[in-house]
Amino acid sequence: MKKVVTMGEIMMRLSPNNYLRFNQANNFDVVYGGGEANVAVSLANYGHNVNFVTKLPKHELGDCAVDFIRAKGVNTSHIARGGERIGIYFLEHGASMRPSKVVYDRAHSSISDVEISDFDFDKIFEGKDWFHFTGITPALSKKSIEITKIAVKKAKEHGLTVSVDLNYRKKLWTPEEAQNVMIPLMEYVDVCIGNEEDAEKVLGLKPEGTDVVKGELHIDGYKSLLKKLKDKYNFSHVACSLRKSISASDNGWSGLAYEGNDYYHSKNYDIRIVDRVGAGDSFASGFIHGLISKNDTRYAIEFAVAASALKHTIFGDFNLVSVSEVEALMGGDGSGRVQR
Amino acid sequence: MKKVVTMGEIMMRLSPNNYLRFNQANNFDVVYGGGEANVAVSLANYGHNVNFVTKLPKHELGDCAVDFIRAKGVNTSHIARGGERIGIYFLEHGASMRPSKVVYDRAHSSISDVEISDFDFDKIFEGKDWFHFTGITPALSKKSIEITKIAVKKAKEHGLTVSVDLNYRKKLWTPEEAQNVMIPLMEYVDVCIGNEEDAEKVLGLKPEGTDVVKGELHIDGYKSLLKKLKDKYNFSHVACSLRKSISASDNGWSGLAYEGNDYYHSKNYDIRIVDRVGAGDSFASGFIHGLISKNDTRYAIEFAVAASALKHTIFGDFNLVSVSEVEALMGGDGSGRVQR
Amino acid sequence: MKKVVTMGEIMMRLSPNNYLRFNQANNFDVVYGGGEANVAVSLANYGHNVNFVTKLPKHELGDCAVDFIRAKGVNTSHIARGGERIGIYFLEHGASMRPSKVVYDRAHSSISDVEISDFDFDKIFEGKDWFHFTGITPALSKKSIEITKIAVKKAKEHGLTVSVDLNYRKKLWTPEEAQNVMIPLMEYVDVCIGNEEDAEKVLGLKPEGTDVVKGELHIDGYKSLLKKLKDKYNFSHVACSLRKSISASDNGWSGLAYEGNDYYHSKNYDIRIVDRVGAGDSFASGFIHGLISKNDTRYAIEFAVAASALKHTIFGDFNLVSVSEVEALMGGDGSGRVQR
Amino acid sequence: MKKVVTMGEIMMRLSPNNYLRFNQANNFDVVYGGGEANVAVSLANYGHNVNFVTKLPKHELGDCAVDFIRAKGVNTSHIARGGERIGIYFLEHGASMRPSKVVYDRAHSSISDVEISDFDFDKIFEGKDWFHFTGITPALSKKSIEITKIAVKKAKEHGLTVSVDLNYRKKLWTPEEAQNVMIPLMEYVDVCIGNEEDAEKVLGLKPEGTDVVKGELHIDGYKSLLKKLKDKYNFSHVACSLRKSISASDNGWSGLAYEGNDYYHSKNYDIRIVDRVGAGDSFASGFIHGLISKNDTRYAIEFAVAASALKHTIFGDFNLVSVSEVEALMGGDGSGRVQR
Amino acid sequence: MKKVVTMGEIMMRLSPNNYLRFNQANNFDVVYGGGEANVAVSLANYGHNVNFVTKLPKHELGDCAVDFIRAKGVNTSHIARGGERIGIYFLEHGASMRPSKVVYDRAHSSISDVEISDFDFDKIFEGKDWFHFTGITPALSKKSIEITKIAVKKAKEHGLTVSVDLNYRKKLWTPEEAQNVMIPLMEYVDVCIGNEEDAEKVLGLKPEGTDVVKGELHIDGYKSLLKKLKDKYNFSHVACSLRKSISASDNGWSGLAYEGNDYYHSKNYDIRIVDRVGAGDSFASGFIHGLISKNDTRYAIEFAVAASALKHTIFGDFNLVSVSEVEALMGGDGSGRVQR
Amino acid sequence: MKKVVTMGEIMMRLSPNNYLRFNQANNFDVVYGGGEANVAVSLANYGHNVNFVTKLPKHELGDCAVDFIRAKGVNTSHIARGGERIGIYFLEHGASMRPSKVVYDRAHSSISDVEISDFDFDKIFEGKDWFHFTGITPALSKKSIEITKIAVKKAKEHGLTVSVDLNYRKKLWTPEEAQNVMIPLMEYVDVCIGNEEDAEKVLGLKPEGTDVVKGELHIDGYKSLLKKLKDKYNFSHVACSLRKSISASDNGWSGLAYEGNDYYHSKNYDIRIVDRVGAGDSFASGFIHGLISKNDTRYAIEFAVAASALKHTIFGDFNLVSVSEVEALMGGDGSGRVQR
Repeated sequence: MKKVVTMGEIMMRLSPNNYLRFNQANNFDVVYGGGEANVAVSLANYGHNVNFVTKLPKHELGDCAVDFIRAKGVNTSHIARGGERIGIYFLEHGASMRPSKVVYDRAHSSISDVEISDFDFDKIFEGKDWFHFTGITPALSKKSIEITKIAVKKAKEHGLTVSVDLNYRKKLWTPEEAQNVMIPLMEYVDVCIGNEEDAEKVLGLKPEGTDVVKGELHIDGYKSLLKKLKDKYNFSHVACSLRKSISASDNGWSGLAYEGNDYYHSKNYDIRIVDRVGAGDSFASGFIHGLISKNDTRYAIEFAVAASALKHTIFGDFNLVSVSEVEALMGGDGSGRVQR
Repeated sequence: MKKVVTMGEIMMRLSPNNYLRFNQANNFDVVYGGGEANVAVSLANYGHNVNFVTKLPKHELGDCAVDFIRAKGVNTSHIARGGERIGIYFLEHGASMRPSKVVYDRAHSSISDVEISDFDFDKIFEGKDWFHFTGITPALSKKSIEITKIAVKKAKEHGLTVSVDLNYRKKLWTPEEAQNVMIPLMEYVDVCIGNEEDAEKVLGLKPEGTDVVKGELHIDGYKSLLKKLKDKYNFSHVACSLRKSISASDNGWSGLAYEGNDYYHSKNYDIRIVDRVGAGDSFASGFIHGLISKNDTRYAIEFAVAASALKHTIFGDFNLVSVSEVEALMGGDGSGRVQR
Repeated sequence: MKKVVTMGEIMMRLSPNNYLRFNQANNFDVVYGGGEANVAVSLANYGHNVNFVTKLPKHELGDCAVDFIRAKGVNTSHIARGGERIGIYFLEHGASMRPSKVVYDRAHSSISDVEISDFDFDKIFEGKDWFHFTGITPALSKKSIEITKIAVKKAKEHGLTVSVDLNYRKKLWTPEEAQNVMIPLMEYVDVCIGNEEDAEKVLGLKPEGTDVVKGELHIDGYKSLLKKLKDKYNFSHVACSLRKSISASDNGWSGLAYEGNDYYHSKNYDIRIVDRVGAGDSFASGFIHGLISKNDTRYAIEFAVAASALKHTIFGDFNLVSVSEVEALMGGDGSGRVQR
Repeated sequence: MKKVVTMGEIMMRLSPNNYLRFNQANNFDVVYGGGEANVAVSLANYGHNVNFVTKLPKHELGDCAVDFIRAKGVNTSHIARGGERIGIYFLEHGASMRPSKVVYDRAHSSISDVEISDFDFDKIFEGKDWFHFTGITPALSKKSIEITKIAVKKAKEHGLTVSVDLNYRKKLWTPEEAQNVMIPLMEYVDVCIGNEEDAEKVLGLKPEGTDVVKGELHIDGYKSLLKKLKDKYNFSHVACSLRKSISASDNGWSGLAYEGNDYYHSKNYDIRIVDRVGAGDSFASGFIHGLISKNDTRYAIEFAVAASALKHTIFGDFNLVSVSEVEALMGGDGSGRVQR
Repeated sequence: MKKVVTMGEIMMRLSPNNYLRFNQANNFDVVYGGGEANVAVSLANYGHNVNFVTKLPKHELGDCAVDFIRAKGVNTSHIARGGERIGIYFLEHGASMRPSKVVYDRAHSSISDVEISDFDFDKIFEGKDWFHFTGITPALSKKSIEITKIAVKKAKEHGLTVSVDLNYRKKLWTPEEAQNVMIPLMEYVDVCIGNEEDAEKVLGLKPEGTDVVKGELHIDGYKSLLKKLKDKYNFSHVACSLRKSISASDNGWSGLAYEGNDYYHSKNYDIRIVDRVGAGDSFASGFIHGLISKNDTRYAIEFAVAASALKHTIFGDFNLVSVSEVEALMGGDGSGRVQR
Repeated sequence: MKKVVTMGEIMMRLSPNNYLRFNQANNFDVVYGGGEANVAVSLANYGHNVNFVTKLPKHELGDCAVDFIRAKGVNTSHIARGGERIGIYFLEHGASMRPSKVVYDRAHSSISDVEISDFDFDKIFEGKDWFHFTGITPALSKKSIEITKIAVKKAKEHGLTVSVDLNYRKKLWTPEEAQNVMIPLMEYVDVCIGNEEDAEKVLGLKPEGTDVVKGELHIDGYKSLLKKLKDKYNFSHVACSLRKSISASDNGWSGLAYEGNDYYHSKNYDIRIVDRVGAGDSFASGFIHGLISKNDTRYAIEFAVAASALKHTIFGDFNLVSVSEVEALMGGDGSGRVQR
């Protein structure tokens, strides 16, 4: 069990159920989630001691978000309260060839108006082992760029391992803006995680021979990409998930990791999707757990992929699975037989 | 049947069901509503030809709001599309001594960023009979003050009768700000509607001897208030609803109107509340309908109060009742016997 | 425990939940019920052996209705299957001063197209003790008048006690039509049950000094009415429920019975209504149970009123209460304390 | 944008959710739909000005159906109100090898008792471009045959293009009856749409080498069928959808069109089905949109098939998709990736 | 139509809906089921006269279970009432590679504390044709072993055919315990049904070359297993279902039967799973129905497999299908086309 | 802010919604609660640092209970995991004169099989201020009597203030058993809380002149009772709630406290009940909060009564209110006006 800190935005997520379109719904399911919060919950599920750092408004809906992650055992004592609003995103679940849709309503959220005085990073990082952030947080606002920079540097000062999930969001910034901010941050990063879009948009590196829309993946291109990433930024580990998008209902899912010697290409899973939001976060948290629990890249990538394959079968942003469930799937039992 | 225009904000409303508190809810009921939209729907229900003017974002959730009022027969062809977001409000239904709570998340909405070029008021008001607005719209932003001023003047130029529901919202502006904006607008207003708080905060006039929190109402104070209002602003009609707040579940409800000669104090209704949001709007639309259909102040105030009493029994912001239902209640049948 | 037969229509009932109006509902709760089916279920709950006789279409929705009453222990082996459709009624639950609404869609139902050959009444009534019908069945169609006449006569031939609930339905026939059919049937009836509207419309007799819409009840008028009924038709017992309609949410409820000597006016109950449909049927079945289990008119009317008071608190047409629950209320415990 | 009129029945649809069988359901989802109403809504979604012509009862459930289509922007001002009832159909969603079931309860509906005086077709068709009807409407009753004949002739007189979806319903009439009525109407039809069953039952023409139950499709047989249709009735365009029924959960879906020169066989889609009711109507409306917006048969058939493939993923009878969504799928993106 | 008796436990089943995990659910769907109750309901659906024998507590939740099976036409008059509690099981529906989970809470249930005096087997079996039990009942407790022994012997004395479904439950007993109890009971059994795990754990016999977790089935191994079973215990018929577990969402499903001459290997079905609990029971009841209605092993195994394939598409433990639905699927129509 | 420990059972609570009876429900709402857990959550809501001590099974449903209280900020690190099952109670919400019903299924729960080694009370109580328990825990089993004794003694050793809520449960033990266990424990108790039944059954003391079933309360009898309690056991404070049971929907609610000098009889509240389970616990926690935050008996009893009045309006066992909400009601605002 390690002590982990993640920092970022947690949003209210509102979604029609039963594959209804937005304009058919009389009610919306409500959960709360966000890249770094999702990682926090996963790592708490895996038995780690996790702090999630964010800022939320003082009203009752801010309380809801706190309760939601506190229920899963994440420490919420460093969450600042104040600001204008909680970010919201609306999710329409797709099916078959109809894609899922996300409508973001996250501008002006409390975390994007964060002040440096909201957090005491020396206290937050004291005695901790690992810090995780994503490319979403600095994309939110100028203030959030500042707070991310401070956090990353402070984490390094306190001797934490730092991981990043690149997580490009085109609604929040352009590739140029992203690269201006993110590339300088890479010097503080030990472990870099991303998917096929992120490396290109956030760091300007691209796999060869891949066409995401057509759902094709060429593993050699990805290998060269990971090598480029590692070589350029001197990461200890790089990993990416490999999604084969067949439809909104079916995906292939695997992962690739590299730590300077070997490439580790995981088992592939053919998935019937219940809810794919948060899959990348579950991959990141699985990879982190693999590294901190066993320090074994093969274990880490297989754990990451099995964990995130399971995420696709779970409603909401959080990947509510245990280590034993992930390891059972890694061990080969994907038969789905009833466990009595 | 008259041709009516109303203008203002329509918000998404999210509320837990079955009296759950916000942090107990796994889903939120979703409807759409707002002061002027609610009046538009009521008047369409009563058989009038109604246009609702607003601005909504271009995305799917803007579409939802359009569909929601279009379903009720309101003409939506003058709704501008654009801007950042749709305003949201969260409603927690209270019960007994636990009050309902509203958390607003309406800043930065499309209507608050409205441009003068979004609407062609000459076209909107051409051939129309009545324009209704409320004190909420100018409270939203500087731009919305401008658009309200233009709308009111244009309505008058086109010969429409103008009504206002004062509707003070303390989260949006101070009494001083409200009075600075609203008092000058009163010269264009023919019919003025409000409740016991609005007159004081928006126009600086106060009933005597009333204590809202304690639920007491002194009718003489209200009579003098209405007289003051009419005398000062030369309204043709003034009307206010009189709520006796016993608890979140039970209220007394009546109304008072004045048109220069007599005071018309309506029948009182003892109400078991299903949903009291929109009650004031249903009172306003009932009063407007009474005036434009019969030009009879007694009828208008009795219709307004019966209509809005019924509103308390209907979920959502809209008062989904017909003229015949309101008139049946006015005629004395509040027995609630099953109508087979 | 006695052997009872009831005969009539069972309909599908569709209703919006949470006090929604019809045009707000995305789904309808579905139950099945009807005057005589409701009596059958109540008597089965009270421990009697009950057969319900009707005709239902052969398709799956006819099966649903059969399952629904079979679940409650009613014998369904004499239900004929065939005909065009199952009758439907749509119920909008009212609240406070907004009345509940029923939209009937029962024309052309299987039971209204019933054939004499559908039932073997000698077999149905063999060894049975009691037959109950209502004024609804003959109101459905000419065929259903015939079948009712045959049933009543056959029941008498087999020595059964016969009870009727007059149950006038203005959508089905006029008072004149009702009286032409029902008055001749009264010679076969032993026990006559009705409410304040039925006696007037079905048998042409009226209580004095009552105004249903205003919710006033004059007990002396009802006493004279029951006496007129008994004297004219030589019933062994007559009983009526007395409803004081305060609103759709609150009613007063009591009953009056007469068997030639004394008038028995029951205790009154002040009721918060959950679902008042089927209240009359629960009164009838309570009265029948009282008579057949104790042959005591005072017990019968108190049981009938307590049982039907409880019905108002139970969703659906059926009065799902036990004898011990009814007797606990009769015994004075209406405190509603939690029973642990 | 064109001006379109469709005419036919709109029914209430009641269905258990979550794949429950009828007799497991405590509530039914309720939507409204019907062949021509579904086409009206699709064309309104695509930006056309659409009038839907029908007859509905005056009560609240008739209002519900009006609201339901009005919400989607369809003009409902020519809907006649009167008659006995709204048609109902009960839908049990199947899954895997368990087929969906429809129980119709549509006899005696208002539209089947329609009177010629209910509609003023000169007014309805004045200034309009296109009229669409289906083989369902004349199958309802003798009166509806008459009204269909009048409508088709009047549409032609006013210079509208006329399209038909043959839509055979075996519960409503025999092939012989269908052919007696429908064949003479074909002289007024410009565009003829159907699926593999319709051509045989309604017009007496059959594809070769196909076995619907076994899910096999022979494209050559269909080509010869379309040619026969066009040659015999001198249609400008003929089109049919080609469904490969693998199970209630999975279907293959493509389409074929012919306009005298080339055969256009669309792309095939492998579909995970959410709700396949209304797929034919979404095909028809897609084909109509393709013709009136681009006058290009290839575009029309590809648009029709992509639109109707998407329909299978949408709950209810209506195909709630936009032109841009359909064109994105036509353009090759069926990957179902989340659209953020 | 035959007269059948089944005996065993019926439990309350509580499950989150929409694939939620236990800790995401605010409510649980509730149904009732259990191996022998499920068989009883299936056989009643197929038109047989069925008695289900069990013991349930006297409180309201015991009543619920009685109502639940009585609704389906099963005779419940021999159910003893008393004891401490109703057994409960919690079911989490899996999806894709996430398995379903069952948490049992069945210890101390009324049926496990059954007394010999609770049942009068001479009365229960009088005039009956068939008795069915499973390996679950004797696994519950020492008392239930006794009652099972008595029941089986009494059934034989009364000349009933006896069938068993071996149904090993590892949470209830060890293979050794199971074999000690079950093997001696086999002398009373005519028809033996099981799946691939049961034969090994309950009777100590194992198919060759199979690996359940990996989802592979070798038909020859199963054939030799059935032969061993028949030869050793002199059963008239032996049958087993063959499940190919691809994932929690997809399974292959077939069956094998043997009666001394030929092996009957049924058609295979590829199933999209809605709810697989109770599949084994639906196989058993289908096999029993096949034998008692046609006395034809081929028909019986094909009926059993088609029936239980359909079960996978139906929510709950019960297989709510009719003979005609099963036979339609046996006849080859698995196309899932809508049945209108 | 004080540091508080509570110890006891937390159960799963299953209840039909919308006032359905048990046998009408297709699903049950699920929450978790129990006397001491409810107190823990309330005190955490009021800002205290609270530990809840219990034992729960290791499976997923034990996890659910942990998550449920952890969400509300209660420290769960001293919860032992093991044992057989989580206690369950089924709750049927009553309405009007129909009482709520509780069916307990709590025997054999993990906490009733607790071992002394499960808890390290020295560690649990180290640095803490207050210990609260109820009369339910020792009623569960012999082991739970032992653990209660140890806990109370250890708490005293560590200098904690000890409070008890007497909470008699007739299904768990007899008055004689209760008194044998509870009376000796009173020497360790500082603050004693109960309602009108508890004092009699648990401690053998009875108020004079009260008849709970009839809903009458005589305040003088209660005063003498509190004095007796205080005098006999030398409590620092005694308090009881006074419920006037009008019906399952309406109750009067007040409280009485005594600390040796004055009697403090609180304001009375007339309550429309949403959910009255947990009202006593919310009274106890309110009283404790009042004492530890202000050490003022008048404040404590008014806070306790206002808090518990609010509890009646909140679904579930937990009283999810804040100090400011309680104080607003204490301050006189029970008007239920919408808080915007």
